[in-house]
Amino acid sequence: MPQSEQAAAGFRQRQKKLAEWLAGTGLLACVVEDFEHRRTSNLRWLCGHPMDAMLFVFATGKTVLVPWDVLMAEQRGVADQVTPYARYGRSPRAAVAAVLRENGVPAAAGAGARPRVAFSELTSHLRYKELVEDLPGAEVVLRADGFESYIGAARLVKDDMEVDAVEKAAEITNTIIATIERLLESPKDLMQLREMDLAQLVEREAVSLGAEGMGFETLAAGPQRSWAIHPFPPFSRQAFASPGLSILDFGVKVDGYTSDVTLTVARGKLSVEQERMVGLVDQAYAAAMAAAGPGVAPQAVAEAADAVFDGAGWKMPHSLGHGVGLDTHEPPILRSQKEGDVPALLPGMVITVEPGLYHPEHGGVRWENDVLITEAGPRVLTRAKIIRVP
Amino acid sequence: MPQSEQAAAGFRQRQKKLAEWLAGTGLLACVVEDFEHRRTSNLRWLCGHPMDAMLFVFATGKTVLVPWDVLMAEQRGVADQVTPYARYGRSPRAAVAAVLRENGVPAAAGAGARPRVAFSELTSHLRYKELVEDLPGAEVVLRADGFESYIGAARLVKDDMEVDAVEKAAEITNTIIATIERLLESPKDLMQLREMDLAQLVEREAVSLGAEGMGFETLAAGPQRSWAIHPFPPFSRQAFASPGLSILDFGVKVDGYTSDVTLTVARGKLSVEQERMVGLVDQAYAAAMAAAGPGVAPQAVAEAADAVFDGAGWKMPHSLGHGVGLDTHEPPILRSQKEGDVPALLPGMVITVEPGLYHPEHGGVRWENDVLITEAGPRVLTRAKIIRVP
Repeated sequence: MPQSEQAAAGFRQRQKKLAEWLAGTGLLACVVEDFEHRRTSNLRWLCGHPMDAMLFVFATGKTVLVPWDVLMAEQRGVADQVTPYARYGRSPRAAVAAVLRENGVPAAAGAGARPRVAFSELTSHLRYKELVEDLPGAEVVLRADGFESYIGAARLVKDDMEVDAVEKAAEITNTIIATIERLLESPKDLMQLREMDLAQLVEREAVSLGAEGMGFETLAAGPQRSWAIHPFPPFSRQAFASPGLSILDFGVKVDGYTSDVTLTVARGKLSVEQERMVGLVDQAYAAAMAAAGPGVAPQAVAEAADAVFDGAGWKMPHSLGHGVGLDTHEPPILRSQKEGDVPALLPGMVITVEPGLYHPEHGGVRWENDVLITEAGPRVLTRAKIIRVP
Repeated sequence: MPQSEQAAAGFRQRQKKLAEWLAGTGLLACVVEDFEHRRTSNLRWLCGHPMDAMLFVFATGKTVLVPWDVLMAEQRGVADQVTPYARYGRSPRAAVAAVLRENGVPAAAGAGARPRVAFSELTSHLRYKELVEDLPGAEVVLRADGFESYIGAARLVKDDMEVDAVEKAAEITNTIIATIERLLESPKDLMQLREMDLAQLVEREAVSLGAEGMGFETLAAGPQRSWAIHPFPPFSRQAFASPGLSILDFGVKVDGYTSDVTLTVARGKLSVEQERMVGLVDQAYAAAMAAAGPGVAPQAVAEAADAVFDGAGWKMPHSLGHGVGLDTHEPPILRSQKEGDVPALLPGMVITVEPGLYHPEHGGVRWENDVLITEAGPRVLTRAKIIRVP
């Protein structure tokens, strides 16, 4: 489906602001490239086209989209000019040089200062050398604090269009959680339930309810495999919700924005150690939620959770949470003992809170919900929980 | 499940050969890194550990695996030493420097030649500068024709362990294709069939039959969306196999090795243009299969197919095919009008042959199968087809 006028206006606004930033920083242009071996959701954030394309944003405000699939770009891509990739012999190298020359980069170095063109900070060293060779008339700029930092900062706080998508994703997520709870109430179904069945149920419900798809591969691990933070393979034929601790971690995507939740299913009578793990995760979750809010350092939220584990002689082998949006993992990261990438939580940020403990014999327990930071405090958008089943 | 002794021996053999290559090239070590933002299946190919880890291979033959999930590495990773990532404060930067210093890289530049350590050719320019700073006692080597080229060449021709996995994946794929054919024979089921149902059926059957999962996101596009080479989203609530041309593209993964097939479902009476497209794809497929074989240039196979399209005034908007294995897209690429990355098909190579045509109104048709090149000629492993449904 084509972009709505409102969405198109939103993308143009982002492009305009980026162009202003480029002009203010003395850059002629920046180049956003998304391809199979290096994905970046900045492409979609800037122009709506989901993948496999290059977007050139010029300080003048002009934007040029060079997509692999031009039919899709005509529907979804918001840009002043759409030029098929095929025009440049399907060579990204040729396309970059040609588009820049058509838009103000001289073919050779002149007497004065050369225009500056910024590429991703992840540009490979070998590609950097090619760019320098191909663009003698430009200065090739790669910076850790360059245009991607600007975009990253802009993406930290979600705008209305983004919050709308996040809320829709959360709503679908909550409907799915309710469906799973009902399923777990039926002992007959439980007998046969495999990890894969849960993964398929989640996806089927998500797409049926209008989601674009899953934000990441659903992880479903029964008691035999829940010791893994990220089980591999992500789901299998093994039983889910057999006695012990099972973990289900999934995210539902709406307009590119994903939710990210984890349910733990605690089935039957747990061992003393398992009860202890569940209790600690429960306490850590509560401590983190009590600590979270506008103006609070992400690190402080993580420390509140880790203090619970430390006090009991346990250690969580991953961070407490992370920002979530077009990417499953975005800044800010919520981690103890290390200064974060973001000094304070701000209204409009969406983060996960996901304390977890894992043990090779007892299994794993993780409880994860998505939280929108508001002026009034944290608003928990999703309703994942630790579900007890007799 | 832990690696079998046979598999472990296979991984050790690959490591040993790489170590010999390193020694012969005057390198002390190479570093293979797989993380969220830069995946490489070379990690799995070398040591069986699927993801999120660093593997150091030294010219002495010693290997050190630094995994994010040490419990998983203990089960799956084949290496002389497994050191948890957490030991280095979960910093890849710190881990690289520490492991190299523990294994022969001096802390400072000495009088003589510095040991040479190779990193991925995709290493970013900014990361390269960090490495140079962190490793004053080493020469940091990034080369397009470096250790990844060596590994790439070794991976081009599949060994027995790999062909075994590829054949298992093909067998499961063929069972699924037969299931889909039976489903399409039932007009009642067809009425309600959505793209998502097909995608879920494929995955459910795959995992039920013992596959690790899907090699890539299944693409299911009904007649409204089959004009897209890669529909986005990959599947939806829309009808599949309603009158017109529908495309189903999927791959089944066994031990990491994926199949890659595409079925087209041609339902009802097609338009003249649609019949023409189907006929041309059929002819192009036959021409390509007739051309393929050991000693043949991949380019020549693509030219055989493109000649069919050219003769009819059509153009295929993608290449004819590609190698397939641990990655969905591997060399060799089968493309006309451009010298390929591999001079000739050799016995043991596994490629796809996938001619396709797309039109914004008539829809798309693609026919893709996987082919093992043998001494005796091409052996088509999968049985995808263009399925006619009344």
